[in-house]
Amino acid sequence: RGLDYLRDPAKIYEESFRQIREAVDLSRFDPATHDLVIRIVHACGMPEVADGLSVSAEAVEAGIAALRAGRPIVVDAEMVAHGIIRANLPEDNKIVCRLNLPKVREIAERDGTTRSAAQVDLWKDVIEGSIVAIGNAPTALFRLLEKLDEGGAKPALIIGLPVGFVGAAESKAELKGNPRGVPFVTLDGRLGGSAMAAAAVNALARGAGEEAGHGG
Amino acid sequence: RGLDYLRDPAKIYEESFRQIREAVDLSRFDPATHDLVIRIVHACGMPEVADGLSVSAEAVEAGIAALRAGRPIVVDAEMVAHGIIRANLPEDNKIVCRLNLPKVREIAERDGTTRSAAQVDLWKDVIEGSIVAIGNAPTALFRLLEKLDEGGAKPALIIGLPVGFVGAAESKAELKGNPRGVPFVTLDGRLGGSAMAAAAVNALARGAGEEAGHGG
Repeated sequence: RGLDYLRDPAKIYEESFRQIREAVDLSRFDPATHDLVIRIVHACGMPEVADGLSVSAEAVEAGIAALRAGRPIVVDAEMVAHGIIRANLPEDNKIVCRLNLPKVREIAERDGTTRSAAQVDLWKDVIEGSIVAIGNAPTALFRLLEKLDEGGAKPALIIGLPVGFVGAAESKAELKGNPRGVPFVTLDGRLGGSAMAAAAVNALARGAGEEAGHGG
Repeated sequence: RGLDYLRDPAKIYEESFRQIREAVDLSRFDPATHDLVIRIVHACGMPEVADGLSVSAEAVEAGIAALRAGRPIVVDAEMVAHGIIRANLPEDNKIVCRLNLPKVREIAERDGTTRSAAQVDLWKDVIEGSIVAIGNAPTALFRLLEKLDEGGAKPALIIGLPVGFVGAAESKAELKGNPRGVPFVTLDGRLGGSAMAAAAVNALARGAGEEAGHGG
């Protein structure tokens, strides 16, 4: 009865990851980053994004340490926040999205910028040692890099995965070309998105939940 | 001072839509669907998805009418729910996501299926005349089609955009090949996602907010 499809969630995951491992050349990535790469590909259904992915040397370690230290995850969009599997966060880490605070609209209008960028001005109390996950707005990533240039506190990790036609490729190239001493994950070109950004956080949360020394 | 990038939100939208209109051949789409197509492309940064997009003849009209009639939007994932711009919904339409209800886990375990599919069994009271937007789980789309085969109530529109390696292409092909009399939007192959599904709803909401007769 019913349609013919795979229903068992464990088997669906297993078969998805099998297909991803078959389609993606993981050999150029550090083994510690494989789960992160696989989960980003899983989120978007495109093995080819692995070709454009950059994971800096310390990124996974720094992200896992931040989660284990109970640092918050600061995101640019509610979609990123709601793609993160809270139950897997090792220290019930706070997820912070300030896009919809009334003050953000005021700052955006005053500065002639997007609300996405304006919210970055309200990250001061949470950013130090945090994981910043940008899955939507190029202007948020640009503004974050400007804040670092102004001497602002550093996050432990920047997951820089904004998407789109204007500024996405450029903001990610700026991050990759000059990460201001911050470990990062990013992707060349226009692709990115909330699902990929959340998947990256979820991969780190899985890593953080594993016994130290057995990660990866 | 600061980095060199476009900050003005209106200009960012304008330039994005200009690039999309340049990159996408809209001529094969009904003019009433152009905004929907453009916004789906905008959400993912990939003009090439337009090639695989199917928008059935009555889809936009049916979606707009459902929104104007105050019908709910039923989604398979919290990410879809949080990508919908609530302020633009013409009748403060309810957004329904039942994935995280405790009962869903029970049904999933009983039936050996995903929670995404199990939640569809709890849509009975909201589905008739609604917009169903599936942006994550192929099993949710398969289960919805099974419910229609069992004689269940029909939504006004199915936005069928699950993503991934297992079942995404197959569930969307099943929808496109036999939509069970329901207007639909879908995309060939593995691509899809919450951002595209939410963008489709947002395009309909914009259409619903325009004066009747001036839509498109």
